[in-house]
Amino acid sequence: MDYAKESLRLHNEWKGKIQVVANVPVETKDDLSLAYTPGVAQPCLEIQKDIDKSYDLTRRWNMCLVVTDGSAVLGLGDIGPEAGMPVMEGKCVLFKAFGNVDAFPLCIKSKDVDEIVNTIYLISGSFGGVNLEDISAPRCFEIEKKLKEKCDIPIFHDDQHGTAVITLAGLNNAMKLTGKKKEAVSIVINGAGAAAISIARLLLKAGYRDVTLCDRKGAIYEGRQEGMNSVKEEMAKLTNRSKKQGSLAEVIQGADVFIGVSAPGALTTEMVRTMARDAVIFACANPVPEIYPEDAKAGGAKIVATGRSDFPNQINNVLAFPGIFRGTFNVRARDINDEMKIAAADALAGLISDEELDPDYIIPKAFDKRVGPAVAKAVAEAARRTGVARK
Amino acid sequence: MDYAKESLRLHNEWKGKIQVVANVPVETKDDLSLAYTPGVAQPCLEIQKDIDKSYDLTRRWNMCLVVTDGSAVLGLGDIGPEAGMPVMEGKCVLFKAFGNVDAFPLCIKSKDVDEIVNTIYLISGSFGGVNLEDISAPRCFEIEKKLKEKCDIPIFHDDQHGTAVITLAGLNNAMKLTGKKKEAVSIVINGAGAAAISIARLLLKAGYRDVTLCDRKGAIYEGRQEGMNSVKEEMAKLTNRSKKQGSLAEVIQGADVFIGVSAPGALTTEMVRTMARDAVIFACANPVPEIYPEDAKAGGAKIVATGRSDFPNQINNVLAFPGIFRGTFNVRARDINDEMKIAAADALAGLISDEELDPDYIIPKAFDKRVGPAVAKAVAEAARRTGVARK
Repeated sequence: MDYAKESLRLHNEWKGKIQVVANVPVETKDDLSLAYTPGVAQPCLEIQKDIDKSYDLTRRWNMCLVVTDGSAVLGLGDIGPEAGMPVMEGKCVLFKAFGNVDAFPLCIKSKDVDEIVNTIYLISGSFGGVNLEDISAPRCFEIEKKLKEKCDIPIFHDDQHGTAVITLAGLNNAMKLTGKKKEAVSIVINGAGAAAISIARLLLKAGYRDVTLCDRKGAIYEGRQEGMNSVKEEMAKLTNRSKKQGSLAEVIQGADVFIGVSAPGALTTEMVRTMARDAVIFACANPVPEIYPEDAKAGGAKIVATGRSDFPNQINNVLAFPGIFRGTFNVRARDINDEMKIAAADALAGLISDEELDPDYIIPKAFDKRVGPAVAKAVAEAARRTGVARK
Repeated sequence: MDYAKESLRLHNEWKGKIQVVANVPVETKDDLSLAYTPGVAQPCLEIQKDIDKSYDLTRRWNMCLVVTDGSAVLGLGDIGPEAGMPVMEGKCVLFKAFGNVDAFPLCIKSKDVDEIVNTIYLISGSFGGVNLEDISAPRCFEIEKKLKEKCDIPIFHDDQHGTAVITLAGLNNAMKLTGKKKEAVSIVINGAGAAAISIARLLLKAGYRDVTLCDRKGAIYEGRQEGMNSVKEEMAKLTNRSKKQGSLAEVIQGADVFIGVSAPGALTTEMVRTMARDAVIFACANPVPEIYPEDAKAGGAKIVATGRSDFPNQINNVLAFPGIFRGTFNVRARDINDEMKIAAADALAGLISDEELDPDYIIPKAFDKRVGPAVAKAVAEAARRTGVARK
């Protein structure tokens, strides 16, 4: 199927992928008096006395803001806020279908970090949580950090954390299959954008130790002068403790794991040949991966995952964000912390039994009905355990 | 029924009066590839080329923002943004039920005019129109004016214009019944808030000439010193051309029409007795009107309207805003101008035939199925006629 053409045709037919519907009847005078004036004054007054009641008396408990500035939409780059809307609406559809979360899309006409933060803050009382989407790095890090400081509801940047959760899940299962230990494996992450940074952070938090980030200038190491920014400086202190230098082709030599969130064709069969035995390749550039599975396997890779649904082991964010928000909302968590993300990854990985586990099946499938509930349960438990649950 | 108690019980049961639902299937891999990546990139690119395509390829064409700062919620005053949400959700329910408009509620955590304006502007690319709600006067006038200058989508403050439209409709029918002429009748509007100002403006625009506003200090006249503000100054130049001074009890003497958007009990039977024959009383304070219908009639009033559903002639905004936005959205109007409001009022009044017209039936009923479509049609036509329609 020509997805581009057919999708455009359908979007013209759909005229929007979401709708706002009424949850209550308005057929009679009494219906009106109860859902609206004069009856509605009473729930208003209850919330005035205790703002937390907004979670009981309005849709806030289940309402997620899906928000972008249109600066990094898919692989299309900065296409502007209005043009980002079809993706945001699509995201909201997935939130509902896979997590029964009400999600509403907004595109902000600003590229200014403080203006974006302030806009989201000012409307945050209407939502139970915020899902940041398709905001370019490094602005996305600053926006997320400032929002977390300012707002009392959970803030989640899916391009970072969703991808990190699924990568961690897949990697944990890959470790099982290869018999390697997470404390010992050497991991090279190619890319230094939102997803790459977040994957590196979560892998370290989850117990992986030897992680090296690579950008177009090669390995990121403490003391590198060229092409750095504040986030890369910070990451240089946390990763690559042996201070490897050189191009991807150089640092990949002997590595156990390659994680690409970078560009088509960044990895070659030759490079895979120089990696350790039973190499694990996550080639997530989309739609054209860093290396195609058959080329990676020709170089000796044991396990290959991509971002595509037409190859095995799809790194698909829909496996994570709906369940993560479902679990977060179920316990009214005030944050989505690392423990909750790791719990989500463990739950995802755990859905595949040791018997089912196979180089072509390390990550559950998008339409596996067990995924959303399993992730939600694990996330809610982790929220309770770490004291961020509010009910 | 104890509406307060029952409404609170129901709100706890409903847990939100709106939901965001998916308009498209996501049952299969192909569904995902069409509603989301990779297919969704194509509609994004189309909108990037031509922002107007956002009206064809996303829900924008039918999506209204319902927004408040919580500063003048119902008669409750400044109860804060979160506490205003039950009213906003209720409004969204009515938008859907009576106009098939998707409406989404937001409460802004700010009382600063420019901050509110900027917040709404920054998200305006996600909506087809904005309905301002329950924002206190005189800030609401400034917010509306600045938004109209800044945004390229229609901005409508329902507390002002919705009320004005229905008042005009009722008044036009009252003129028919009393045989009085709009050019000749003397009208006193009690109140100087958002609704009062907007009613005065629309009545003048529609051909009524002798309109006097009254606040707690009495008649507003050009040159008055006490208790004025910029909007009252402006209105003093447009209304009360004979520069009447004095209290409501004084200026009401000989008047044909009293329109109250003020406070319970502001008008007495004694005062009605001093009015012209066949006096027309719109006592819209809610839930306790300026005067009860039986007391007004005891003073000689021929026609009485209130804001309540348990008396005849209810001035109920639900008669106007759903159809006004339906008509506006149908022709993608860039503004909701006075001609469109007057057309809405004429359409409303016209639904009651000369035979049906009666002192107890000058305004159609809220559940009259003809209302929404009739208003929408008239509004769309007026938009075309005045050149603000974009399709």
